[in-house]
Amino acid sequence: MRVAVFGLGSMGYGMAASLVRAGHQVWGLDVNPGPVARFRAEGGQQDDPDPARLEAVVCVVLNAAQTEAVLFGEAGIVPGLGAGAVVVSCATVPPGFARDMEARCARAGVHYLDAPISGGAAKAAAGQLSVMAAGTPQAFAAARPVLDATAATVFALGDAAGPGSAMKAVNQLLAGVHIAAMAEALTFGMTQGVAPRQFLDVISKCAGTSWMLENRAPHIVDGDYTPRSSVNIWPKDLGIVLDIARGAGFDAPLTETALARFRAAAAMGLGAEDDAAVAKVYARQAGLRLPGEDA
Amino acid sequence: MRVAVFGLGSMGYGMAASLVRAGHQVWGLDVNPGPVARFRAEGGQQDDPDPARLEAVVCVVLNAAQTEAVLFGEAGIVPGLGAGAVVVSCATVPPGFARDMEARCARAGVHYLDAPISGGAAKAAAGQLSVMAAGTPQAFAAARPVLDATAATVFALGDAAGPGSAMKAVNQLLAGVHIAAMAEALTFGMTQGVAPRQFLDVISKCAGTSWMLENRAPHIVDGDYTPRSSVNIWPKDLGIVLDIARGAGFDAPLTETALARFRAAAAMGLGAEDDAAVAKVYARQAGLRLPGEDA
Repeated sequence: MRVAVFGLGSMGYGMAASLVRAGHQVWGLDVNPGPVARFRAEGGQQDDPDPARLEAVVCVVLNAAQTEAVLFGEAGIVPGLGAGAVVVSCATVPPGFARDMEARCARAGVHYLDAPISGGAAKAAAGQLSVMAAGTPQAFAAARPVLDATAATVFALGDAAGPGSAMKAVNQLLAGVHIAAMAEALTFGMTQGVAPRQFLDVISKCAGTSWMLENRAPHIVDGDYTPRSSVNIWPKDLGIVLDIARGAGFDAPLTETALARFRAAAAMGLGAEDDAAVAKVYARQAGLRLPGEDA
Repeated sequence: MRVAVFGLGSMGYGMAASLVRAGHQVWGLDVNPGPVARFRAEGGQQDDPDPARLEAVVCVVLNAAQTEAVLFGEAGIVPGLGAGAVVVSCATVPPGFARDMEARCARAGVHYLDAPISGGAAKAAAGQLSVMAAGTPQAFAAARPVLDATAATVFALGDAAGPGSAMKAVNQLLAGVHIAAMAEALTFGMTQGVAPRQFLDVISKCAGTSWMLENRAPHIVDGDYTPRSSVNIWPKDLGIVLDIARGAGFDAPLTETALARFRAAAAMGLGAEDDAAVAKVYARQAGLRLPGEDA
């Protein structure tokens, strides 16, 4: 199929590359020329896409504002798409925004799949993402080749946009809280003589474990803050969660507390580091030296 | 071996029964006569133990105060034990308390194993607990038959008391925060149309999952708050974590936030319910009806 991927960050690039591997004609677009040139060198189409001939648009940008700009902004793609094309929208956005985008796409004769993704850069590159998807049967059908090429698991959560974004917000709430909790527990343990390596070895086999602990604690143990997913993701995603919660009159105190920790990490200049660097907020407060930190 | 088990709650009873199955002579003691009589009917020794002939004392009471009373109170057992006996101390206590008990036992010629347990009632009954153990090589050797009969996994964390209790505190910090986070995320999802069953099905396969989510969310989905582990455990255990943290000058804001939620649950009269009932604090605030709650 003919498909354009907007947003060639680590997730979007991996999805675009997976689509190429599956034999599709893929245009990769990004505000940064670097990944665009790299993608063209690695199997992407060389020219600019003709919107009228695209069958699918995969939108893997940062947030709702960027999604709206890609779809309906000054150079928005949707008005130029042919009838029956599908937008696969992967950014973490409020459910109400997803419903709005679906309605605006429908008025243009375009299907919209509310399709936030989970799994990280490695799974994106391998075409093994989890997709939390919701949309009309027609949207699912039109998006099927994209899902087949990029996802190991597709959760079909409803027949209209919204539930995909809702489930993604739920997942992000937990993921963010669990990363901060891992950092809190690891550094608390250090004050009691529990070394980070021992923490990881023992707790990962006990009732205190989480997916995020097993994934992120090794970064701290290794003193490696190369960003697989950066601190800056969390003020954004937990902020979205809290916006949605406030709109529903829902108190989310653990989410607020975790958000404050990630904001503190960003304020310390750690925004571009791996999100496990939130442990440095705790370590600095308690006067602890994490693995890899100089004496 | 000849072993006395103090505290026949669900964990202690399971350990005592596992010791009987392993062929040991086991005395079961508790302030409540019910479980004592039941244990005698199910293979326990019929008389009172002669402390001088006991080889091991397993102490599975609620906290440090009860542990101290069992070991060194008015009718404390340690002064009557023979030289070379071992105390296996399983309650969640501060590491400093464990070190103090070890020293006092040593003065009586008694070994002390700092041995908090994890795994829940079912694993206790099956002799499949995880034990976070620390103590002298002599204490480990003397406690070996007890560990063999009751534990699937023994983490040997150090050659003096303290690190077992430290690791247990770390584990409880995470377990408590994760239960509250599960409750926060599940009820947040309900405000966005995500049904509890769908939450469990999807999130347990995503990056937001945790051991506690997979263990406790089914209780909410089923509307079943029969206490496998009660709300009241958490004000106690997270209180211990925060006491230790304060002593170390360590800020633990997620722990504080989770503790406040469990206290709110207890204040609502839910202290004796399963700890998943912390979700009711969120549900009441947001006007949600959890599964099994009447209209």
